[in-house]
Amino acid sequence: MLVLVTYDVSTTTAEGKKRLRKVAQLCQNYGQRVQNSVFECIMNTTQFTALKIALTNVINVEEDSLRFYRISGSNYKNKVEHLGAKASIDLEGPLLF
Amino acid sequence: MLVLVTYDVSTTTAEGKKRLRKVAQLCQNYGQRVQNSVFECIMNTTQFTALKIALTNVINVEEDSLRFYRISGSNYKNKVEHLGAKASIDLEGPLLF
Repeated sequence: MLVLVTYDVSTTTAEGKKRLRKVAQLCQNYGQRVQNSVFECIMNTTQFTALKIALTNVINVEEDSLRFYRISGSNYKNKVEHLGAKASIDLEGPLLF
Repeated sequence: MLVLVTYDVSTTTAEGKKRLRKVAQLCQNYGQRVQNSVFECIMNTTQFTALKIALTNVINVEEDSLRFYRISGSNYKNKVEHLGAKASIDLEGPLLF
């Protein structure tokens, strides 16, 4: 399942900047950053639950916003379109060396 | 159909800041801003095509990134989860005055 993780973390304080880095690091474990605060993660339900718990322990729920969009189905690639810079890689595509 | 529009617009120049405002204005015509650079838009295919064309005419494809995620099906609300601040409104919910 593709899960899109989008977030706004308040970076007005040093503490907020630290939270921002931590949120990105956690998401990086499960997928790829496609925009500044958007990650595409390929995960199963158990991994998704684990990520949500980990993120909940990091953010400040009064200031920060996290959104998760489950884009289910094996054909999720057909549901994603990109225009402009920073094209993403196909997480399940062949690894070319 | 719910279409998620996420974008990174380079704001290092005045021109970039202008593009950012224009992108947000265009998206605002079709839906709600749920995070700084994330819009949830309820549209049909024709509207989606029109929005993409309008956005393509605004962005700088070398610097800016636009991503569209089609979350189809009438049960799209079940596919969206939110944690923390800035909860979104239910675009198709009852209008309470």
